[in-house]
Amino acid sequence: MRIGLVGLGKMGANMRTRLRAANIEVVGYDRNPDLSDVPSLAGLVEELPAGERLVWVMVPAGVPTHAVVEELAELLAPGDLVIDGGNSHFADDGAHAATLAARGIGYLDVGVSGGVWGLANGYGLMVGGDEAQVAAAMPVFDALRPPGPRDEGFVHAGSVGAGHYAKMVHNGIEYGLMQAYAEGYELLGASDLITDVPGTLKAWTRGTVVRSWLLDLLVKALEDDPTLGDISDWVEDSGEGRWTVDAAIDAAVPVPVISAALFARFASRQDDSPAMKVVAALRQQFGGHAVKSSGQPT
Amino acid sequence: MRIGLVGLGKMGANMRTRLRAANIEVVGYDRNPDLSDVPSLAGLVEELPAGERLVWVMVPAGVPTHAVVEELAELLAPGDLVIDGGNSHFADDGAHAATLAARGIGYLDVGVSGGVWGLANGYGLMVGGDEAQVAAAMPVFDALRPPGPRDEGFVHAGSVGAGHYAKMVHNGIEYGLMQAYAEGYELLGASDLITDVPGTLKAWTRGTVVRSWLLDLLVKALEDDPTLGDISDWVEDSGEGRWTVDAAIDAAVPVPVISAALFARFASRQDDSPAMKVVAALRQQFGGHAVKSSGQPT
Amino acid sequence: MRIGLVGLGKMGANMRTRLRAANIEVVGYDRNPDLSDVPSLAGLVEELPAGERLVWVMVPAGVPTHAVVEELAELLAPGDLVIDGGNSHFADDGAHAATLAARGIGYLDVGVSGGVWGLANGYGLMVGGDEAQVAAAMPVFDALRPPGPRDEGFVHAGSVGAGHYAKMVHNGIEYGLMQAYAEGYELLGASDLITDVPGTLKAWTRGTVVRSWLLDLLVKALEDDPTLGDISDWVEDSGEGRWTVDAAIDAAVPVPVISAALFARFASRQDDSPAMKVVAALRQQFGGHAVKSSGQPT
Amino acid sequence: MRIGLVGLGKMGANMRTRLRAANIEVVGYDRNPDLSDVPSLAGLVEELPAGERLVWVMVPAGVPTHAVVEELAELLAPGDLVIDGGNSHFADDGAHAATLAARGIGYLDVGVSGGVWGLANGYGLMVGGDEAQVAAAMPVFDALRPPGPRDEGFVHAGSVGAGHYAKMVHNGIEYGLMQAYAEGYELLGASDLITDVPGTLKAWTRGTVVRSWLLDLLVKALEDDPTLGDISDWVEDSGEGRWTVDAAIDAAVPVPVISAALFARFASRQDDSPAMKVVAALRQQFGGHAVKSSGQPT
Repeated sequence: MRIGLVGLGKMGANMRTRLRAANIEVVGYDRNPDLSDVPSLAGLVEELPAGERLVWVMVPAGVPTHAVVEELAELLAPGDLVIDGGNSHFADDGAHAATLAARGIGYLDVGVSGGVWGLANGYGLMVGGDEAQVAAAMPVFDALRPPGPRDEGFVHAGSVGAGHYAKMVHNGIEYGLMQAYAEGYELLGASDLITDVPGTLKAWTRGTVVRSWLLDLLVKALEDDPTLGDISDWVEDSGEGRWTVDAAIDAAVPVPVISAALFARFASRQDDSPAMKVVAALRQQFGGHAVKSSGQPT
Repeated sequence: MRIGLVGLGKMGANMRTRLRAANIEVVGYDRNPDLSDVPSLAGLVEELPAGERLVWVMVPAGVPTHAVVEELAELLAPGDLVIDGGNSHFADDGAHAATLAARGIGYLDVGVSGGVWGLANGYGLMVGGDEAQVAAAMPVFDALRPPGPRDEGFVHAGSVGAGHYAKMVHNGIEYGLMQAYAEGYELLGASDLITDVPGTLKAWTRGTVVRSWLLDLLVKALEDDPTLGDISDWVEDSGEGRWTVDAAIDAAVPVPVISAALFARFASRQDDSPAMKVVAALRQQFGGHAVKSSGQPT
Repeated sequence: MRIGLVGLGKMGANMRTRLRAANIEVVGYDRNPDLSDVPSLAGLVEELPAGERLVWVMVPAGVPTHAVVEELAELLAPGDLVIDGGNSHFADDGAHAATLAARGIGYLDVGVSGGVWGLANGYGLMVGGDEAQVAAAMPVFDALRPPGPRDEGFVHAGSVGAGHYAKMVHNGIEYGLMQAYAEGYELLGASDLITDVPGTLKAWTRGTVVRSWLLDLLVKALEDDPTLGDISDWVEDSGEGRWTVDAAIDAAVPVPVISAALFARFASRQDDSPAMKVVAALRQQFGGHAVKSSGQPT
Repeated sequence: MRIGLVGLGKMGANMRTRLRAANIEVVGYDRNPDLSDVPSLAGLVEELPAGERLVWVMVPAGVPTHAVVEELAELLAPGDLVIDGGNSHFADDGAHAATLAARGIGYLDVGVSGGVWGLANGYGLMVGGDEAQVAAAMPVFDALRPPGPRDEGFVHAGSVGAGHYAKMVHNGIEYGLMQAYAEGYELLGASDLITDVPGTLKAWTRGTVVRSWLLDLLVKALEDDPTLGDISDWVEDSGEGRWTVDAAIDAAVPVPVISAALFARFASRQDDSPAMKVVAALRQQFGGHAVKSSGQPT
């Protein structure tokens, strides 16, 4: 089997390696010629068998993915198949599918989880789209997913958009899980009783209710840097946590934990919180409580 | 009427002034001789009529209040009355009442709201204790509370402890209200559309659903300092927010807003959040996401 | 002065009454002929002076408002002015303004607060748009806003969209304030110490830090129904709380209190929470904890 | 090695089985004679070698544990060792240790995680106390903990109290993790796109960032009951979540996620929320919004 792969960044390059290890031929294209196997998207298309081409798109969500889908709609032929494995918003999938369907080209959206560890361990895959198209791409999915029973690392979750929706929710959960461990870590450190915080976390990796892969990673991070002294408390968010809360609001689903985790990240990036200045100002107004002036040492 | 007042700090001194303006004679005692009308607590007791003494205690909660109550239990006589108007925890009131009742001395607990504005406007009063003792102290309550109908600034809320419990809940609500305005203020400032944030808040002071005394104070604070540029975002908490959440947990009452307001204050005081370092470390572990090192400029 | 008013529902009809009381002539149109002063929007336009017409739109946000604006764009003349006083999303205002500007017609967006009480008390007004157009409409604003200094019930908050943005934030704050009082009310009721919950809330209406118009309304509600026994705990949301949290997420502003208040409403409307079923199922799985079967009496 | 085990409920009985399988002789005592190996606590003590006795206590926290510790203080001899493996609050451990130390008896507190699965998998153990006493009990810990490296299922976390403190934090984290999955589950079910919710969760068990033992349990629960139709959304809490939030408040550590998870459980148990009735009543007051009467069908 020979497929095309568009986007050879960190994730795309690793996936190409994993696919090739499974004896799937991969023609990779990246707009950076140093990374690319072919000089252009058109060149990539030419390397694949018309009418049964499979092109996996792994570029940033939004404009870059839109652009690739539009170009592929021009280049591909009826019967070909495009798979968007990037972190697109699920609401984009319908339009992408329609654009391609107008030319007889299939479309699947795939949520891909596993990060840098996916190369070695395999990637968790959530797929949206038509049954027949999913079946056609199954050899690719089987190569990418972790070894073991297929249904433990792969799901055909529903119609077009379901793959990215599922991945979005996956990431929302991830925000909540990480924040839960983070709060627990801070609480361990706040007690004079606990003299071995990293050891306590490590002891949770077998037998306990809270054991998980994220906990294993935290133990690993603490082995490298037992106090996390080299890491800032400034935390980025990649957008999928925001989408999760937005989707929850649309559906009137209460998500107090996922939203709290998202807001903790927002707050972590503020040098100076306008909101908390208001609270300080109000306390000063009604109580004559002392405030810290912004100029004084803290 | 002549009463004793123990504790002549900011609140106590203002209350003495308001009481005297209402023609109640006040003998004030403070351990700081520069503030005190009498040299000792014993001296204060001597100035009052045995068996119908009323001593209002206005000292810090905890050990200082315990000490004054213990000493008054020795000095006072059956029929006298002690009122704790400080910010004691409601769970202390039962013990204080029992200590005094063992010697035939009455006890009321009073939550007092109004801050530095109480001198001019009157204080909101919430009282716990026996009906007859409340009636005996009513001239004092009437002098301290705002003018207008008694039930709009005074309540006999229940048995011993009810006054401080009500004040605790009042302060818990206050945390939530302040945080709500604070979040709104920050949202106004985050929009390019809004060119007049202080003016928008001021326009809410009449006619709107969110008009309140706290909003008036915020408008006042912004008149002095339109960007709150001189105020740090570091916010203290006085303990009653913590007690409110503790009480909610004991009673299995969900308090997502009051607790969120409390935690925002805790976070405001952290230079470096151990929890958020964990989240950053985890993102780096699984995603190869860049983190800020703690040493780099932010 | 004579103006047009489109939409004579509860809000629109009250506003017409208040405007007429201020000697502003109002030609009202509603698609319900029983309420309408004129048979059609075209009829309304004919009653007003071309080139200086002012038409206030007070219809539901979204499609109804879009439709009225589109129709007015056809009917009005250069120099006329449309004001959207409904609860439109601020992101709609730019398009409305552009549609009208293409024909030389002006546009202001106005957030209106005050509910059913606005008729008697006046409405808090937040306005977005150009200075000259705001000036032209000032007699209308002055008639609608509460008496007293103009800047205590009116603001020209910024450019087109600012009025609705400010109103959105106002309502987000309102969610937080209401939930704060609600949590406090429940906490008062959870204590055996407190024997007079309505009286405690009433005692907070003067002198305290938490006094507000919403508190006055709560006292009024409890005077009618001291245990709120006739009211269900099912709480609707009108959309502006959702928009506020969405806007906060877009701007990376932490809003833990406003979002908690929103999610409490979502949860109040669930007969059966899928999320809490998961938590119950997990406890059963790992701990052998008993669960309630959904069929058993609760 | 022969030890005593007090409390043969679900956890105690399983632990006895696991210890015996590791060739540790266990004399079990339970106040229920049908479960007990000996007729009394005194009888249990007689079966063990004086001066090197090890008695593991596995009874409910609070009064039952206090009573057993008091009785053991009378029965045991200097050099003996008591281990509290129950879910005691960490603040109780100091008193227990002091009571026993006064008679030369040692004391360790151990947090035990693993639930009903511990019998087969081993228990995660967190220990507080003196080094020498920990060493003496190590054969017991090695028998109970999961196979594999000792430090992946066991930790000597610190001084007396550290074991229970660590277990408390473990459980607090557990609350947050469970709620995160629960919110995600509800979000999956809220989308029309997702046609296979249980399959999506199962696909997350390998390769993804959110894989964990709790996720495995959720997949298992859904295999038994794909819609959780037989499980009520009423969720108990065992107390350790409350203690975690209390400890966080004492230490001024923000725990928005753990507290949100706790409050979601409180709310799940309310038939009628006083707080949400207040919000409904307020909406009715200011907006004339319709409320549901409590009597009407929902």
